[in-house]
Amino acid sequence: MASLQDIAVAAGINGLSALMFLMVFAMLRLQPINDRVYFPKWYLKGIRANPVTSGNAVSKFVNLDADMYLKFWKWMPAALNMPEPELIDHAGLDSAVYIRIYLLGLKIFVPIAILAFAVLVPVNWTNDTLETINNLTYSSIDKLSISNVPAGSARFWVHIGMSYIFSFWTCYSLYEEYKIVANMRLKFLAGEGRRPDQYTVLVRNVPPDPDESVTEHIEHFFCVNHPDHYLTHQVVYDANLLTTVVNNIRSMQNRITYYQNKYERNPTKRPTTKTGLLGIFGETVDAIDYYRAEIEKLLKEVTAEREKVINDPTYIIPAAFVSFKSRWGAAVCAQTTQSSNPTIWLTEWAPEPRDVYWDNLAIPYVKLTIRRLLMAVALFFLVFFFMVPISIVQSMANIEGIEKVFPFLKPVIREDTVKSFVQGFLPGIALKLFLIVLPTILMTMSKIEGLTSMSSLERKSAAKYHFFLLVNVFLGSIITGTAFQQLHKFLHQSATEIPKTVGVSIPMKATFFITYIMVDGWSGIAAEIVRLSPLVVFHLKNTFLVKTEKDREEAMNAGSLTFAESEPRIQLYFLLGLVYSTVTPILLPFIVVFFAFAYVVFRHQIINVYDQKYESGATFWPDVHRRIIIALIISQLLLMGLLSTKKATKSTPLLTLLPFLTVWFHLFCKGRFNSAFTEFPLQDAMVKDTLEKATEPNFNLKAYLEEAYVHPLFKAAELDRRISLNDEENNPLVATKRNAATGSKYPSNEGSPKQVPLD
Amino acid sequence: MASLQDIAVAAGINGLSALMFLMVFAMLRLQPINDRVYFPKWYLKGIRANPVTSGNAVSKFVNLDADMYLKFWKWMPAALNMPEPELIDHAGLDSAVYIRIYLLGLKIFVPIAILAFAVLVPVNWTNDTLETINNLTYSSIDKLSISNVPAGSARFWVHIGMSYIFSFWTCYSLYEEYKIVANMRLKFLAGEGRRPDQYTVLVRNVPPDPDESVTEHIEHFFCVNHPDHYLTHQVVYDANLLTTVVNNIRSMQNRITYYQNKYERNPTKRPTTKTGLLGIFGETVDAIDYYRAEIEKLLKEVTAEREKVINDPTYIIPAAFVSFKSRWGAAVCAQTTQSSNPTIWLTEWAPEPRDVYWDNLAIPYVKLTIRRLLMAVALFFLVFFFMVPISIVQSMANIEGIEKVFPFLKPVIREDTVKSFVQGFLPGIALKLFLIVLPTILMTMSKIEGLTSMSSLERKSAAKYHFFLLVNVFLGSIITGTAFQQLHKFLHQSATEIPKTVGVSIPMKATFFITYIMVDGWSGIAAEIVRLSPLVVFHLKNTFLVKTEKDREEAMNAGSLTFAESEPRIQLYFLLGLVYSTVTPILLPFIVVFFAFAYVVFRHQIINVYDQKYESGATFWPDVHRRIIIALIISQLLLMGLLSTKKATKSTPLLTLLPFLTVWFHLFCKGRFNSAFTEFPLQDAMVKDTLEKATEPNFNLKAYLEEAYVHPLFKAAELDRRISLNDEENNPLVATKRNAATGSKYPSNEGSPKQVPLD
Repeated sequence: MASLQDIAVAAGINGLSALMFLMVFAMLRLQPINDRVYFPKWYLKGIRANPVTSGNAVSKFVNLDADMYLKFWKWMPAALNMPEPELIDHAGLDSAVYIRIYLLGLKIFVPIAILAFAVLVPVNWTNDTLETINNLTYSSIDKLSISNVPAGSARFWVHIGMSYIFSFWTCYSLYEEYKIVANMRLKFLAGEGRRPDQYTVLVRNVPPDPDESVTEHIEHFFCVNHPDHYLTHQVVYDANLLTTVVNNIRSMQNRITYYQNKYERNPTKRPTTKTGLLGIFGETVDAIDYYRAEIEKLLKEVTAEREKVINDPTYIIPAAFVSFKSRWGAAVCAQTTQSSNPTIWLTEWAPEPRDVYWDNLAIPYVKLTIRRLLMAVALFFLVFFFMVPISIVQSMANIEGIEKVFPFLKPVIREDTVKSFVQGFLPGIALKLFLIVLPTILMTMSKIEGLTSMSSLERKSAAKYHFFLLVNVFLGSIITGTAFQQLHKFLHQSATEIPKTVGVSIPMKATFFITYIMVDGWSGIAAEIVRLSPLVVFHLKNTFLVKTEKDREEAMNAGSLTFAESEPRIQLYFLLGLVYSTVTPILLPFIVVFFAFAYVVFRHQIINVYDQKYESGATFWPDVHRRIIIALIISQLLLMGLLSTKKATKSTPLLTLLPFLTVWFHLFCKGRFNSAFTEFPLQDAMVKDTLEKATEPNFNLKAYLEEAYVHPLFKAAELDRRISLNDEENNPLVATKRNAATGSKYPSNEGSPKQVPLD
Repeated sequence: MASLQDIAVAAGINGLSALMFLMVFAMLRLQPINDRVYFPKWYLKGIRANPVTSGNAVSKFVNLDADMYLKFWKWMPAALNMPEPELIDHAGLDSAVYIRIYLLGLKIFVPIAILAFAVLVPVNWTNDTLETINNLTYSSIDKLSISNVPAGSARFWVHIGMSYIFSFWTCYSLYEEYKIVANMRLKFLAGEGRRPDQYTVLVRNVPPDPDESVTEHIEHFFCVNHPDHYLTHQVVYDANLLTTVVNNIRSMQNRITYYQNKYERNPTKRPTTKTGLLGIFGETVDAIDYYRAEIEKLLKEVTAEREKVINDPTYIIPAAFVSFKSRWGAAVCAQTTQSSNPTIWLTEWAPEPRDVYWDNLAIPYVKLTIRRLLMAVALFFLVFFFMVPISIVQSMANIEGIEKVFPFLKPVIREDTVKSFVQGFLPGIALKLFLIVLPTILMTMSKIEGLTSMSSLERKSAAKYHFFLLVNVFLGSIITGTAFQQLHKFLHQSATEIPKTVGVSIPMKATFFITYIMVDGWSGIAAEIVRLSPLVVFHLKNTFLVKTEKDREEAMNAGSLTFAESEPRIQLYFLLGLVYSTVTPILLPFIVVFFAFAYVVFRHQIINVYDQKYESGATFWPDVHRRIIIALIISQLLLMGLLSTKKATKSTPLLTLLPFLTVWFHLFCKGRFNSAFTEFPLQDAMVKDTLEKATEPNFNLKAYLEEAYVHPLFKAAELDRRISLNDEENNPLVATKRNAATGSKYPSNEGSPKQVPLD
């Protein structure tokens, strides 16, 4: 139990460390050498091609303009200044809506915090329950919390009233936000230009036909059943093997560049490598020649495989992208049932071409349901038994275990300092490592489930991660014991006991969660803006792998919003805020600071750094909404549990109404807004079709759609780009200067006046 | 605890009473005077217009053909002989599929019963647990049940294995049946002729438009958004007031007929009535003249109201039936979202014209969600607190209460016999009355929820009734105490305790449920076939109200399958069968007899008696399927609970897998078959459209659809039929003989050789 002073000190330390990160960021971002780390988005957009400063040689790497250092905080107003429509245009709707989650946090918690401080803090403070109990060490924080109200006090009516007000306010904010986001999405869809996915439907589970090939069968089916609307279709090839080979070639090319750079620096000695595993074992050969020969070999393989895939009908999977003459025709086909057997001819909106997850297009219906069952079981075990493998690793990662496996380390780890380090840190590292790979594991599970677009994969993974955090971080922090022990306990407790067990521990954990918010929230966000790992990786690549502008562009890792990982973490803050709003209001300011800080930082990031891989048009919002509702209901149940242990039997039943009303509110919102995120209304399709027909009556849609949904590896340009190994590059001694725009999506206009849009 | 002998005696008594009912039925149905009670369907179909026998005057009322009495059991094979396709043609798909529920019961329980008797009965019997416990009165039934297996015995593995086998068999049967029914439905839809609902979509929540009337707005919207397919539409008038007036007229007409009949029999005295309440109070007047004047008045009112409704735009509600040029166009419109605001322009398949529930078409979206919330709350209170109002009535319905309200009854009820009758029966009657009106209450609740078709109303009511039976009959019989006490207890018990509490009591209640099956199932079904109440009502009406053949036809009440009431009752048998299959297999034969007997009886009824009010194409099957799955899961959980009290700790965890597998099976079936019951695939629509275009290229669809979805009261013919009061009938002394076909849907062909199709 920490006192207010302790909390203040911790806040100071964390605030300082956050400030330190910000100072570091302010320094680093001004250095031209880091320009591609902190402003990659502008490079990718082609607006920026060189660092800002133009002066002598030194200023190419270090910024010497003192004035700019003094204005180091200027990025914050700059990040906030860009108006929302421009932001959508610049970063896409997904990103713009994503940062609205933080804004929603502010909208919900600022009024709640003010009200809680005005009403609940005095109500709690003016009791003396804790003072009258002897033998109890209590802190000033507890004096501000509900623990200070004596059992059976009439004051609990205030808490119940506040719980109603907070719930209504949260629901109101959620409703308004849902409305805003739904309108943004509709406006976005209505406003955006012609895109292939507007005309295209993904058809899966095409039934086999003994007399026709897949492509003929698809064509006949849609010619018959959508006679006035069907335009063309694109079959999907099974290119998994090809992808592997192409990826191999890319890694070989990286190695060649590395050795060529090495050779350039030291032309007296040809670099060598070994042919065996990882270049460590095997025969020694000339590295550049060896890899060049390997690539030649693989290139032949690629050509052969490509021929085979295109010509062999068994490589065509029973799925296709079917395009229609109008958006109306596509909307109709996507929303209707095609066949009386609902497991064949499944149609859905085609994802954006960039968003397609090609590997999952061929899974038949029965397999899909079995995969889902298996993944549900796997998720259950992952969440409730994840400590088992970690404990095993931890038990092995002790001194004796290491000695056994690596006997030669014996003298080193026998040293006292090393020993204590190993014993103190290794178990923690095992857990930390697991938590770092967890999102990847969850993403793999979602992939096994058979979803067909990147955006849905991210959403599913987020749902899984949210469940994990809820059980293992939230409940796990409140109740001691592993998740499985909790589950076992809950199963043997009555439905009314569970909220009591959890609710009672809630006030005691307030200090812990305040610290958590500061460390994970404040410092974590500040660390995010420094982009330490991309910074290091970029400079490493820049040193060893970069030869051309194009290489430099590829070395630049803009990153993107990792929805699957970050959104569930935000949800944890919503949960904490809602749970503690009535119990320990002192926690609320920390939440508010987190949301405000994160909002500014991520607004900056999406403007200057992140490059989204796809655009889903904010389809994730219903998930965000639902999870906040879940947090709200959890907070209501826990307050009920807490109050029922406080002998407030008269008042507690009043609270039972609240979860039911919340569930109803959720259903209402779902009916009111959800379809805006899943369906494309015919009216809107018709409006766009009509407009298009009037403005561009002679547009050749078929030609436009022809190449849209070809697997990336079968697009001639793409393949060449990926495995480019032409004569120019074969000659390592002539420095080439290719156009930086080859990899970027927009023509680069070097030296344009737009270069410094946000400083 | 009854012994096997007791059960045998009870079975004998109930079997005899069932047999008695059957004998009575066999006698009554042969009397020509009852012909319209036992064969109404054939009259309604127009195949039969007179009783079978044609002879002297006596044989018009009593059947004197001794031969026919000897063959009284012949209806059974006759009922079974009609092949299924013919049955669908004759009685409709709804009825044909409904009796398949009984068939499914046989398919599931006959093999289970055989296996249980072959394996479980010997396993249970060859123990002596009950014999070794002193001081315990046990019966031979218990010796056959799981109670006879000692705690911790390895024999429980057999029960667990059987539970797996029974569950798999049930799921397999369910899967096969779902497949059959889905195919039957698709074939039915594909095979049926042109019907207005195939071309029509119900549009609700048409948004108000300041510049256009509702009908203009609808026309413009669909002309723009479905330009190639929109044909016409039919607005809906608010005719609730009109309906009341017309119903008033009908009841007046009945009274006139009654008094005219009275006057005919006794022409010396004009019958009189009083103008006040119920004809008891007020001024005395000539009955026939009075009611005729009243009807004249009401008729004028009807004409005025009708004019008003048609001409006043405020009577047009914001809903309409929109028809399309092809089935394809209608299928597209029904399955797609029209507007970006998903609470307006809601489209769904139009129900069959007979199936429309007109009163609910105008409810706006927000109101609808609130109504649903309120009804959910109401259902909760109805199920868990239904004993409260009944207890109040019961407490009032004692001697003192009656004396207070009706002091003049005092001398009568002071008599001992009357007193004991009142005290013994009145409380029971209060409960019985509640149970009789319960389906009506539930139906009213469903109507308030705002469903738009009769079939969906029935399905929703069935779901509510099923919940009620589950809680109050099944759980209520097993655990003592009111439903609310149970709920309270469950809330304070852990999730693993609840199945234990219920499971432990299961074997002890076997005898009770066997008796229940015999009384409610066997005798109840036998009583159903006698149709006592329609018999009495028909003869009463025939005596007092019937003047013409048309009147006689209207007096004939064919009735129909009451899905909302009967289906949940069948589900109770599924539940009992599944729960007791592993616990007390002796119950299974009783279930099998019930299903077999009910199958024959209801097959007879749907062939000869029932006249379905609408045809929904077996849309109820997913509900039936889901509820059997629920029963299966309950049975698995209860077995788990029971075994865990039997110290079979090693084996019980094996059972936990079963409910999860069952849920997965349900989800799989839902994905596989459900859409066949909710959507109309475009492929099928296209096939029918193409066929039709080829065979009838010049069919005038617009004219065909013009009148299809007019409110019944606005159809000229219908209104005249309902309030017919023409000159012929005004003259009471001339006996008229109208064509019996006016009210029937098919032309009657009197004296056709098809008269006795099933004897």
